[in-house]
Amino acid sequence: MYSEGMSASDTSERLIESTRELLWERGYVGTSPKAILERAGAGQGSMYHHFKGKPDLALAAIRRTAEEMRATAAGVLDGPGTPYERIEAYLRRERDVLRGCPVGRLTMDPDVIASDELRAPVDETLDWLRERLAGIVEEGKERGQFASGLDGESIAATIVATVQGGYVLARASGSPTAFDVGVRGLLSLLAPRQDQDQDQD
Amino acid sequence: MYSEGMSASDTSERLIESTRELLWERGYVGTSPKAILERAGAGQGSMYHHFKGKPDLALAAIRRTAEEMRATAAGVLDGPGTPYERIEAYLRRERDVLRGCPVGRLTMDPDVIASDELRAPVDETLDWLRERLAGIVEEGKERGQFASGLDGESIAATIVATVQGGYVLARASGSPTAFDVGVRGLLSLLAPRQDQDQDQD
Repeated sequence: MYSEGMSASDTSERLIESTRELLWERGYVGTSPKAILERAGAGQGSMYHHFKGKPDLALAAIRRTAEEMRATAAGVLDGPGTPYERIEAYLRRERDVLRGCPVGRLTMDPDVIASDELRAPVDETLDWLRERLAGIVEEGKERGQFASGLDGESIAATIVATVQGGYVLARASGSPTAFDVGVRGLLSLLAPRQDQDQDQD
Repeated sequence: MYSEGMSASDTSERLIESTRELLWERGYVGTSPKAILERAGAGQGSMYHHFKGKPDLALAAIRRTAEEMRATAAGVLDGPGTPYERIEAYLRRERDVLRGCPVGRLTMDPDVIASDELRAPVDETLDWLRERLAGIVEEGKERGQFASGLDGESIAATIVATVQGGYVLARASGSPTAFDVGVRGLLSLLAPRQDQDQDQD
C-alpha cells in the first residue's frame, strides 16, 4: 500500500515513525539504517533525500518521542486534584510497562550518550519532568500536604527515578507487577498520613 | 603479552572478562563476537573451543557480573548499623554512576529480555536484592524505626527502582549529581523523623 502515490512528506513521516518504533524496541545501537528502510518501505535514496543519515533521522525521531512524552505527562500533572493526587495520577497513569520508557531507555545506548546532540532531547525531557514535579511538591508543602522538611527537587528526582527504575524491574521479571509495587512503595512514603496532619495543626 | 604461553583457562577467562566489559559498555545487541575476540586478543577457534557462541559466553559473563553485584550489595546490607543506616549505606555506596548498572542495563537489551536463559541471572539478582531489602525494612518496622504501615516489599522495590532510575537520570544529564539527588529524596522520605519517633512512644 505504501508503494504507490507516496508524497515526499509521507516518506519522511514513515521514516521518522519507523525509527521511533525501532529505537524503542532495539535501541540506537541495535537499529540499522537497513532495518529502518525495510520497516518504512522506503529506499536508501529517499532516506538520504530527507535526512543526512541515521543520526539525523534518529534526532528527529527522538525529538518527536520526547515531545509526546512531555505532552502525556503534562496532561496528568496539569490535571485536577491536590498535589499528591496529581503525583499519584502521574505514577499510576497507564503505561506499556514491559516496553520500557521510549525516552529513558536511550540513556543505556552508548552512541546516544556519546552524542551531545542526541542526548539533548532526552536530558531536556527528564529535566522538564523533574522541574514540573518539583513545583508540585513545593505546592504540596505550602498546602501542608507534604512535610515542610522535604526538598521538592530531591523528591522530584526520586519520583522520576522510581518510574525509570520500575521499568527495569518489570522487564527483568517479565511482568509489570514489579513496576506497580515500586510505585506503591513510593506513594506510601509520600502519602500525607493522618498523624502527620494532626502534628501540623 | 597475551600471545605467548597462554593456557586454555587464561583464554576462557579473558573471553569472559572482555564480554563483561563490552556488555556493560555497549550492551548485548551492540557487542559483536568480533569485538569480543579483539578485546580478548583471542582467535575465533578459541572462542568456539570454550563456548558454544555469543549467547553462551554472554551467559557466563552475566552470571559473573550478577554474582559480583550481589556480593557487593551483601557487603553493605549485612554490615553494621540500624536498618535505616544499612539502607543508607547501600544507597550511598560508591558507584561508577555514569557507567550505569552492569546488571540493570541489560533489561533494556531486547535480545537479553527475549531469552529466558540470559534474563534469568538479571531477574534473580534484582529479586534477591529486593528480598534482602524487604527483610531490612521489616526489621526496621519491628524496631520502630519505620512506620508500621509501610510494606517491606513495596519499599524494597522503590529503593531498587530509585537506584536503577538514578542511573538513567545521571546518564541523561551527563553528571552523577542527579543520581545523588534522587537518593537524597528517597532517604528524606525514609528517615525516621523526630516527631514520628515521639508519636510512637
